[in-house]
Amino acid sequence: MLIGSKVSSGIAIGKAFVIKEEEFNIIKIVVKDELKELERFNEAVQKGMKELHKVEKNKDIFESHLMILEDPEFVGSIREKILDEKVNSEYAVQTVIDKLIKIFKEIEDEYIKERISDIKDVGSRILSILKGESENFINVVEKDSIIIGKDITPSQTAQMKRKKVLGFATEIGGVTSHSAIIGRNLGIPVVVGIKNLLNEVNTGDLIILDGNKGIIIINPDEETLEVYRKEINKIQEEKNELLNYKNLTTFTLDLKRLQVNGSIGNLKEAEDVNKNGGEGIGLFRTEFLYMENDGLPSEEEQFNKYKEVLKKFKDKPVVIRTLDIGGDKKLSYLPMEEELNPFLGLRAIRLCLNRKDIFKTQLRALLRASIYGNLQIMFPMICNLNELRKAKKLLDECKVELEEDNIKYNKNLLVGIMIEVPSAAIISDILAKEVDFFSIGTNDLMQYTLAVDRTNEKISYLYDFNDLAVLRLIKLVIENAHKAGIPVGMCGEMASREELIPLLIGMGLDEFSVSPSSILKIRKIIRSLNYIKCKRMVVF
Amino acid sequence: MLIGSKVSSGIAIGKAFVIKEEEFNIIKIVVKDELKELERFNEAVQKGMKELHKVEKNKDIFESHLMILEDPEFVGSIREKILDEKVNSEYAVQTVIDKLIKIFKEIEDEYIKERISDIKDVGSRILSILKGESENFINVVEKDSIIIGKDITPSQTAQMKRKKVLGFATEIGGVTSHSAIIGRNLGIPVVVGIKNLLNEVNTGDLIILDGNKGIIIINPDEETLEVYRKEINKIQEEKNELLNYKNLTTFTLDLKRLQVNGSIGNLKEAEDVNKNGGEGIGLFRTEFLYMENDGLPSEEEQFNKYKEVLKKFKDKPVVIRTLDIGGDKKLSYLPMEEELNPFLGLRAIRLCLNRKDIFKTQLRALLRASIYGNLQIMFPMICNLNELRKAKKLLDECKVELEEDNIKYNKNLLVGIMIEVPSAAIISDILAKEVDFFSIGTNDLMQYTLAVDRTNEKISYLYDFNDLAVLRLIKLVIENAHKAGIPVGMCGEMASREELIPLLIGMGLDEFSVSPSSILKIRKIIRSLNYIKCKRMVVF
Repeated sequence: MLIGSKVSSGIAIGKAFVIKEEEFNIIKIVVKDELKELERFNEAVQKGMKELHKVEKNKDIFESHLMILEDPEFVGSIREKILDEKVNSEYAVQTVIDKLIKIFKEIEDEYIKERISDIKDVGSRILSILKGESENFINVVEKDSIIIGKDITPSQTAQMKRKKVLGFATEIGGVTSHSAIIGRNLGIPVVVGIKNLLNEVNTGDLIILDGNKGIIIINPDEETLEVYRKEINKIQEEKNELLNYKNLTTFTLDLKRLQVNGSIGNLKEAEDVNKNGGEGIGLFRTEFLYMENDGLPSEEEQFNKYKEVLKKFKDKPVVIRTLDIGGDKKLSYLPMEEELNPFLGLRAIRLCLNRKDIFKTQLRALLRASIYGNLQIMFPMICNLNELRKAKKLLDECKVELEEDNIKYNKNLLVGIMIEVPSAAIISDILAKEVDFFSIGTNDLMQYTLAVDRTNEKISYLYDFNDLAVLRLIKLVIENAHKAGIPVGMCGEMASREELIPLLIGMGLDEFSVSPSSILKIRKIIRSLNYIKCKRMVVF
Repeated sequence: MLIGSKVSSGIAIGKAFVIKEEEFNIIKIVVKDELKELERFNEAVQKGMKELHKVEKNKDIFESHLMILEDPEFVGSIREKILDEKVNSEYAVQTVIDKLIKIFKEIEDEYIKERISDIKDVGSRILSILKGESENFINVVEKDSIIIGKDITPSQTAQMKRKKVLGFATEIGGVTSHSAIIGRNLGIPVVVGIKNLLNEVNTGDLIILDGNKGIIIINPDEETLEVYRKEINKIQEEKNELLNYKNLTTFTLDLKRLQVNGSIGNLKEAEDVNKNGGEGIGLFRTEFLYMENDGLPSEEEQFNKYKEVLKKFKDKPVVIRTLDIGGDKKLSYLPMEEELNPFLGLRAIRLCLNRKDIFKTQLRALLRASIYGNLQIMFPMICNLNELRKAKKLLDECKVELEEDNIKYNKNLLVGIMIEVPSAAIISDILAKEVDFFSIGTNDLMQYTLAVDRTNEKISYLYDFNDLAVLRLIKLVIENAHKAGIPVGMCGEMASREELIPLLIGMGLDEFSVSPSSILKIRKIIRSLNYIKCKRMVVF
């Protein structure tokens, strides 16, 4: 048994597939025709970019790879090397990558250090293409494998389709490493930071990967296997049982009507909401439209995507949140200055009010799509009344523009805001009078209320879902909303914390917006609760 | 007239003194005895460190210079160069510095870019010492000069004693540049980012430096001079008039008693509080004790400093805040991991509860000093009840330890907390029952409540002292404190905002803690106000 850090939960039993670090034996060749060599390199870059564009999952990681490939300085210095030194592309790529990694390693910054694997990955991709090898390691992986590697690259993890890969384990990496993020997205167990892993495991070994405990067991005895098999069966049975709730309505035992909606980040997940019986979409993040593009998406492009999702949901509500970039989300084609505290910086609505061109394009697209379903627009990160009014004014401007052009939109369109900055919660009585609904974004609300970066592991003990101050703010927001006659949803992680659902219902929360895979579980819990009893729990 | 950015206010009229960038013509010499050369270099480093230790002001900047000189990799690579290449120290220093600057310039990070001037400054210092030149440029500066430079280094600014230098102006730099910070600390006008400055100004030119408008006027006409002279006189007269308030008590017109105390960061400023008629110290930051040392200050060292300040103030209250490092304040000898959002990270009480050894040393020193005056201990950044209880428990442990050793301390010592995290304000009813006083830290409270990094210029428009949510939180804190029968002070920048004083008094604030130079102004304003009328302003 080897111990590591648990970064993605779940249990898997399967055969090990060990990835050896790809090694490229690069030799330096002096080429005769450097222009032809340059063309060869350019073609490899084009091909690499195409491959990256095709990736469906984990867009943001490959987005950062694209950024590297699109960086004129990076590609330029390789081109320069080919031209000036008349060397083969492989050698030029390897030399520039090595130099970059050396620079990055000298920087005392965990975030930048994590980016080294991105650069390596981009380098491997281009070198693979130059060598005429396509990325096909996954084809030799047997069904139901557990992937073992030193540090699995994003390209490798992205190939791990669920049907083939049951989980993975690595020697290095932390909670914020790409492998961990992708593992959680795929919903498979991941254990990282396992010392000596590659020496202990060989391809074909039988492995129990326990992401809940952060351990792997190599070639376990039959007794241990039996214990784990039972646990896996139990988990599967619970999943099957939940399917009974798919077509049920969300009521408490004493018949208070609630809604369980899905929070999604792309069109594919919209389908998952339907599959899991969601009553609508409580949060549709629009960042993917901007992340997967080479430049700002046009009004037409956005309109088509919004229309597509609205049509899928017919008269069910679809709450689309306007662009929320900045903070830890960047766009390669929109240069943003480095900030000392990006979570307290120019992000979301602040950026949109600063870049009215970007914002109005999105608002026009949303308005035009509004006639195809039950669209509701939501502004993120509102921190004072002035911001809300500015955003609404721009929406009104777009409406006038559309009217002048005789373009239809839904004149009864609902407009709401995220309550995720403490100041917004505190003045929610005032804000409630000027919007149609609230959605409480607990991730940011907790982060700012407690002054705790939720990605900072050293102080994660303070990021407490039972924190009294946060619960009081939530209660205040719900009370203020109901006084003004508007509903309140919740779209942060807290909404899917089973232990908090009774309390949230007791406070009067109207809607839960959770990841598609959590919808049925939440509905089941709500249907087992009594609203009047829940109310008695709210004593703070 | 040239226009720049205003970064430190005030007006000055004086002769220009232009600093040309120091240039060292370094030639490469092959030395015969490299060990002797190495010794020469080592001596220069020792001398440089001594010089840096002697600096009194702006410890944190020179602290970072010391860190560079103490960095074994930095100094090591110079030593290596001397030994391996048998070159003169000057050449080795310059080569290593040039390489470092090149690496830093490639990094897209404003913070790191700002550090380039630190490295240059360290390099110049060592090269100066090697050349046998001491830093004496200030000796040739005439009285009442205005210093003009491309980018004035911290070493240069630190020499600018108030009596000699009236202000300074530079071609480059921003609000967060060292020059700006030191200028504000010295209380002299600074204008930065003035294009073409060095081409337009010569040493000896008559200059009007208007830090309020962010301009400099070169060789102004008599009419302009007269306007500015009158303005300077007016400012001086107002200052003189304020001295009448030095020995008066702080009452409103309707005889509500308030206190105006000083906020200070070192022992020298403690005297300034007395000189300006402060009624006590509302905030004594203890970071200086840690910043000016090579290592953690001992209990004895701290005890002596605390005792010194307490004796100066006799029975007047002296509120000493326990260590608040982390965030943007680092200690060279206490390695801290880089954080993505340091303001939302491991800082202040979080760090102290994590490093109980450091915390208890300070608490013991404070307890021992408590018998020499009216000491009150204040914990920063408390965000929940648990943290407060943990901190108090450690204080109790220290008391027991002292009792066991028969060491005296004031058993009636008051213990309070900063209210600067939104969650603390929201649960201030609960916290108030377990402490003797509150002090509202508005800088952080605003920052977190609005999710706005106050040092981020792009969103500074949101950092609004009239923000309703922040004012409501302050009102809540004061109400909760008074219900529990404890007083509330304020020690952030808001406490010295003239326009807000009526409102703060109306809300019931008991104490203002401001920079020594603001004490008299605040007292004057309070003595002109009517408490009952102020109360009527609080309608939110």
